[in-house]
Amino acid sequence: MTPLRSIKAELVGKPCDAIDTPALVIDLDAMKRNLVRMSEFAKKHGIGWRPHAKMHKSAALAKVQMKAGAVGVCVQKTAEAEIMVAGGVHDVYISNQVIAPRKLARVAALSGRLTALGGQLAIAVDSHEGVTRLAKAMLDARGGRGVGSVINVFVEIVVGQGRCGVEPGPAVLNLALEIRKHPALRFAGLQGYHGKAQHLRTAQARRDAIASAIEAVVLSRTLLESQGLKVGLITGAGTGTMLLEAASGVYGELQAGSFLFMDADYAQNEPEAAQPQFEHALFVKTQVTSTHAGHVVCDAGHKSHAIDSGLPRVHTFEGEARLEYANGGDEHGIVRAPDGNQHLPALGRTLWLIPGHCDPTVNLHDVMIGVSGGLRKGVVERIIAVDARGALT
Amino acid sequence: MTPLRSIKAELVGKPCDAIDTPALVIDLDAMKRNLVRMSEFAKKHGIGWRPHAKMHKSAALAKVQMKAGAVGVCVQKTAEAEIMVAGGVHDVYISNQVIAPRKLARVAALSGRLTALGGQLAIAVDSHEGVTRLAKAMLDARGGRGVGSVINVFVEIVVGQGRCGVEPGPAVLNLALEIRKHPALRFAGLQGYHGKAQHLRTAQARRDAIASAIEAVVLSRTLLESQGLKVGLITGAGTGTMLLEAASGVYGELQAGSFLFMDADYAQNEPEAAQPQFEHALFVKTQVTSTHAGHVVCDAGHKSHAIDSGLPRVHTFEGEARLEYANGGDEHGIVRAPDGNQHLPALGRTLWLIPGHCDPTVNLHDVMIGVSGGLRKGVVERIIAVDARGALT
Repeated sequence: MTPLRSIKAELVGKPCDAIDTPALVIDLDAMKRNLVRMSEFAKKHGIGWRPHAKMHKSAALAKVQMKAGAVGVCVQKTAEAEIMVAGGVHDVYISNQVIAPRKLARVAALSGRLTALGGQLAIAVDSHEGVTRLAKAMLDARGGRGVGSVINVFVEIVVGQGRCGVEPGPAVLNLALEIRKHPALRFAGLQGYHGKAQHLRTAQARRDAIASAIEAVVLSRTLLESQGLKVGLITGAGTGTMLLEAASGVYGELQAGSFLFMDADYAQNEPEAAQPQFEHALFVKTQVTSTHAGHVVCDAGHKSHAIDSGLPRVHTFEGEARLEYANGGDEHGIVRAPDGNQHLPALGRTLWLIPGHCDPTVNLHDVMIGVSGGLRKGVVERIIAVDARGALT
Repeated sequence: MTPLRSIKAELVGKPCDAIDTPALVIDLDAMKRNLVRMSEFAKKHGIGWRPHAKMHKSAALAKVQMKAGAVGVCVQKTAEAEIMVAGGVHDVYISNQVIAPRKLARVAALSGRLTALGGQLAIAVDSHEGVTRLAKAMLDARGGRGVGSVINVFVEIVVGQGRCGVEPGPAVLNLALEIRKHPALRFAGLQGYHGKAQHLRTAQARRDAIASAIEAVVLSRTLLESQGLKVGLITGAGTGTMLLEAASGVYGELQAGSFLFMDADYAQNEPEAAQPQFEHALFVKTQVTSTHAGHVVCDAGHKSHAIDSGLPRVHTFEGEARLEYANGGDEHGIVRAPDGNQHLPALGRTLWLIPGHCDPTVNLHDVMIGVSGGLRKGVVERIIAVDARGALT
């Protein structure tokens, strides 16, 4: 039973008022402006951009980005890669480690499929075991058919995130040499992604973190080149630091994804003057369902938006009083008026929340409702499926 | 494209090793023991149990619970109610406020449908506007057809949660009188649900909170009865406090839902001796994908489990060293070994996480994989769809 989906398809052409709450809404005008800013930024720095589809999980939005100049997409999961390819995206980078043989068989099959389509697949590794398992899967996928597809392999380097990667220097060289032993693998370059740096609040802290990441990457590249290994591409960067990676002259592709929607968390970063100023384009439409002397309750809780990077902010339209959102559980939000209780919204009033973190928020929804002409007076232009929602494996 | 779903259907009859990670897995043996404990507990106290389907969002599990003695289900959303009814559950209580006229039209239509099926629908209210809007929707649904369905209406009372409800006493009476004016509404009783009390860690703090809730409920009931209004049923309670509501002699139905799966958060409560000891029955199966000197990385981040009530715990099998889970972002978990790094699991090793909070964790997944015979040596018995996943409106 999916009555919701059919209702949502009927929304196209209708005013925003027709959107039932809670719902995930994209301000398409703001999104398009963010796209233009990103495209101009990448052009100015002469750098490729391969936005992370783990954020929007939508093949349609991936294709909108590629039309605007993106070279392809990053994903984190094999299933996301499969769904992107099924949706017509033919240049995909799994920027993560895949270890399970069953999943590696899927990776190899997808690589074959993309090669047949004239596209390409890439993947990250950070262990010898990961490389040999990948090589075996690629070989198995060839069966008796002689030459098969070749997958691009990036060595992920430890750059300060404290998560995946191999230590800069000799370990990188060893892994690159291991990759080169396998005819179905092509050593494509290095990944130096510093996720934590994205959310450091001061510009100086982010500069320090990325300077150290760049040092690790350059040290490794220099060593590899001294041994005659060509480092084709260095990839990394998120929305919080991409100015620094882009300006480094070292990185060749940016993975930033959040710029498209901008969330409340990124908006808390002290801005860098030279970084494009992205707008909030992703909102949860919600409604007041219960009113009280000191607070009201709205119908969006943390099943409507992720709270890993903080609670959502209530969007303030010009001339309106500020409202504050507090956690009310899975299905409720508590809204207070710091400017005085006379500003509390009435029963039935619509509020628009800016999610704390766009990636896991999008992952809670089956569709995103694209609106043009503004949130209040706009019209529903399109319904965008979150194709890879829940695609975890 | 849903290759995942077809893969999952093929899992039935296969060993747990065949489950790709990350995946949501139910230990069906533990779940069944929890069900028996709940059923016996309710019988002992002579109280009805109407478990919250907002937790498992599965019509199949709702029916398993009703077979074990549950009187029906609670839900929080109109869409959840619709999905439960479509799945064959015919006694549904929307324990929440619904205000939007379009949604109330759906509520009224569902009430008519359930009446025709010999079932019944109930809903909570906490405002006059809510009552009159509901009455109008019920009237509109009758059209020119004379007598239509009647919906059961509960007045939600403020009992300490600080969210929805009307103040105990005269406000409750006024709302009950308003309900009685409308022929399509039946005043069914009171809801006194204290969500915050569920998670108070000491038994004494929970006793104090629920004593105060019961006082508010009894005060209101006494006033209503003094005015000749029959209070048919008092409903409330969650897994953390249900012993107290059940023993009160005041509550007639328990809404507790989490007992079925038990999460890491509830397990932190100081136990009450007389409360059934529920077992963890819900797990996220995950795999080590990257290994390092002081930590390993697994493939389950907060897109696999909710973290609103704390991070998941790594399940420790007998004789194994304890492992600790730290947040690694959307798709990764950082696992450390407090008993010494020699206990860090190897690349490819399977780990089982106990989610911090089961409700929003289930809501991240399309299916739950039911296993019997234990997590490690068991066999996949059934795939349970999360029917109401993302059913927000």
